[in-house]
Amino acid sequence: MIQCPRGTRDFLPDEMEKRRFYEGRLRHTAGTFGFREVETPIFEDAELFILRSGPNVLKELYAFKDKGDREIALRPEMTAPAIRMFVNNMSNDPKPIKVFYFGQCFRYERPQSGRYREFFQFGAELIGSATPETDAEVIAMAYAMIGSLGLREYKLRIGHIGVLRQKIADAGVPRDRAAEVLQKLDKKLYDEARPLMEDMGVAGADIDDIFSLTETVGGTEVLDRVPGEAGDYLRRVVGFLEAMGVRDLEIDLGVVRGLDYYTGMVFEAEAPSLGAEKQICGGGSYTLSELFGGEKVFSTGFAIGFDRILLAIEKEGQVYEPRGIDAYVLSVSEDVRLRAAEIVAGLRAAGVSADVDLMGRKMGKALKHASSVRARYAVIVGAKELEEGAVTLRDMSTGEQCLVPVGELPSRILC
Amino acid sequence: MIQCPRGTRDFLPDEMEKRRFYEGRLRHTAGTFGFREVETPIFEDAELFILRSGPNVLKELYAFKDKGDREIALRPEMTAPAIRMFVNNMSNDPKPIKVFYFGQCFRYERPQSGRYREFFQFGAELIGSATPETDAEVIAMAYAMIGSLGLREYKLRIGHIGVLRQKIADAGVPRDRAAEVLQKLDKKLYDEARPLMEDMGVAGADIDDIFSLTETVGGTEVLDRVPGEAGDYLRRVVGFLEAMGVRDLEIDLGVVRGLDYYTGMVFEAEAPSLGAEKQICGGGSYTLSELFGGEKVFSTGFAIGFDRILLAIEKEGQVYEPRGIDAYVLSVSEDVRLRAAEIVAGLRAAGVSADVDLMGRKMGKALKHASSVRARYAVIVGAKELEEGAVTLRDMSTGEQCLVPVGELPSRILC
Repeated sequence: MIQCPRGTRDFLPDEMEKRRFYEGRLRHTAGTFGFREVETPIFEDAELFILRSGPNVLKELYAFKDKGDREIALRPEMTAPAIRMFVNNMSNDPKPIKVFYFGQCFRYERPQSGRYREFFQFGAELIGSATPETDAEVIAMAYAMIGSLGLREYKLRIGHIGVLRQKIADAGVPRDRAAEVLQKLDKKLYDEARPLMEDMGVAGADIDDIFSLTETVGGTEVLDRVPGEAGDYLRRVVGFLEAMGVRDLEIDLGVVRGLDYYTGMVFEAEAPSLGAEKQICGGGSYTLSELFGGEKVFSTGFAIGFDRILLAIEKEGQVYEPRGIDAYVLSVSEDVRLRAAEIVAGLRAAGVSADVDLMGRKMGKALKHASSVRARYAVIVGAKELEEGAVTLRDMSTGEQCLVPVGELPSRILC
Repeated sequence: MIQCPRGTRDFLPDEMEKRRFYEGRLRHTAGTFGFREVETPIFEDAELFILRSGPNVLKELYAFKDKGDREIALRPEMTAPAIRMFVNNMSNDPKPIKVFYFGQCFRYERPQSGRYREFFQFGAELIGSATPETDAEVIAMAYAMIGSLGLREYKLRIGHIGVLRQKIADAGVPRDRAAEVLQKLDKKLYDEARPLMEDMGVAGADIDDIFSLTETVGGTEVLDRVPGEAGDYLRRVVGFLEAMGVRDLEIDLGVVRGLDYYTGMVFEAEAPSLGAEKQICGGGSYTLSELFGGEKVFSTGFAIGFDRILLAIEKEGQVYEPRGIDAYVLSVSEDVRLRAAEIVAGLRAAGVSADVDLMGRKMGKALKHASSVRARYAVIVGAKELEEGAVTLRDMSTGEQCLVPVGELPSRILC
């Protein structure tokens, strides 16, 4: 039996309905923030992702040559495609530009809980503005989105990559080796970061200072300890966030976010219930467009791991109830089946979601099928009732039945 | 500058909004018919598509080996994945099962008008029932979907592969070579079909009969000329379709639909405005599940070419107007920007789609941006008005302005 490929999933009707429901909430929230949807191809020139993330990304890519010998790759994320799209098609549009996207991404890695080879991301980019309000707007939207899904337990942590970058440059880490150090610090691998920096000639006291900076974590009051421009900047971001009602922020100067294209504010959200794979959202301000052949343009964006956040909601006990259909139409006898077809067509045209018995089942079996498709009503079409232009309407939850003129069916069912 | 790969597209906000609008209509129609959405992976074991369509399909597939040396392929269509999903996960569910899906498919072929390497299909499968009503239900849904998009000029043609299969078998075409003949007949390549059948020893008079059968085209009255079981069956399908209000059917026994897994009724819809690439929908009844390791189960399904049908709508002059946003909030002076942030947050929480000036623009420029994002209202936040708890609400289409208490903004804007 052929199965779906390892690390990918089939979504059956109940699961899919649930996913569309939550996707709809994210979509609605993005709309209230004035963000508009865009869509890019499932695969791109592999170079795009190498430019964004470095050649190491190839290890995790589904990359291959097409029949025209082009190196293409299934997208592992959607920020690079969105910025490529901006450079190609939107660079002359009025700024700032607010876009969001939702879709499949692909990474070849070992599947585990909340980690798939085909996974779904919801993301947004605010392109062409570099103000504290811009960063606050994007964080506020991420916050509103997580909230719109009803997730209760999560932490939103905000940092500023500039503080740490400045500090390690001042301490003598060469510019082209900063990324190595930041990666260790991002994962709090102090045991590895210390000898690395020592090799670069960084003094022990400076290393201690750097470590202590990455441990600067707390409520917004810790910002008082953050010096210079970055501190001023974050204080303004936080001011706007508070005005927009974003609560329970944590400041964490240890948020580095692995990738070295971030330029300033960085943020993450975590759902502790998820254990090791607890990050549900990450983002920050960056520039990428110049890498793809455009002018340098400042942007702020984020992505939400849709699969993980659904997992977190589930762990909190949230249950989604599938809606089912409005009506199931069945015939008492063979001679009224054409009339049943007419009736179901009329219901559908009126906006009622209606199924109809297609297999000529006897009433008991047909009613059982009506239950299994979660119909709220059964419409029972019988010859005798039809003579008076009526059918029997059965409430599937109570079992109550009454005669209803055919023309009144839609209003009775939709009320 | 990196471009999106040949034959793929970026969808910018206006285009994307239009596509989601029409997708929503298809989705709604499928819902009224009691079909439920499913989703399968973007790629599958390549074997799945070879089993369905024969090894020739490999020429058109985006097929490659993953890092685990598995032969995988980007899906060229979604019927095979849907039936694989059924075999793997749904084979014990109550029948019939009604599912639909919407998404990207991939074919490596020369891009041309209405033909892309990444294209979008909307499809549905009704699994586990083999009655005339089943076929009618599926055709009626395709008809309702096309109608829901507002397409005016199109032809819906219904045939029955069984009539032609029986005829060519009776004439002496060996069973294992029927597909070759049917492919020629499907494309009306009579000059090639004749020598092919002559080689198989088919008599000239029988060949003439076969050709004339494929030319049996017309209104439902031509069914009187269709003999045997297939004729009876199609008459019943048409009877149900008429009861469901499906008009202007054409019967066409030349509809063969290339693939040899169809077992009975086949149908197609064409939009003549599209020229050579005019087919917008195709389907029929088939069995596939046994190929994928399941029991043999009869199904009826169809797919709509979403890109092509949108092209047809456009050619008919249908124009979609993007909706824009409800409100754009701007500050008269620097000191009220935090209050503006509060106000925009309040609007969004009330369900208003609202953008806010993030760049500290002067009023004239900010109003210009409000126009460019198609805001219906501008909310002008000034210190003096705020003292009285009010802001200026400007109707962007008329330019009329009035003072509105902050608390009344959502109801004034959403009314």
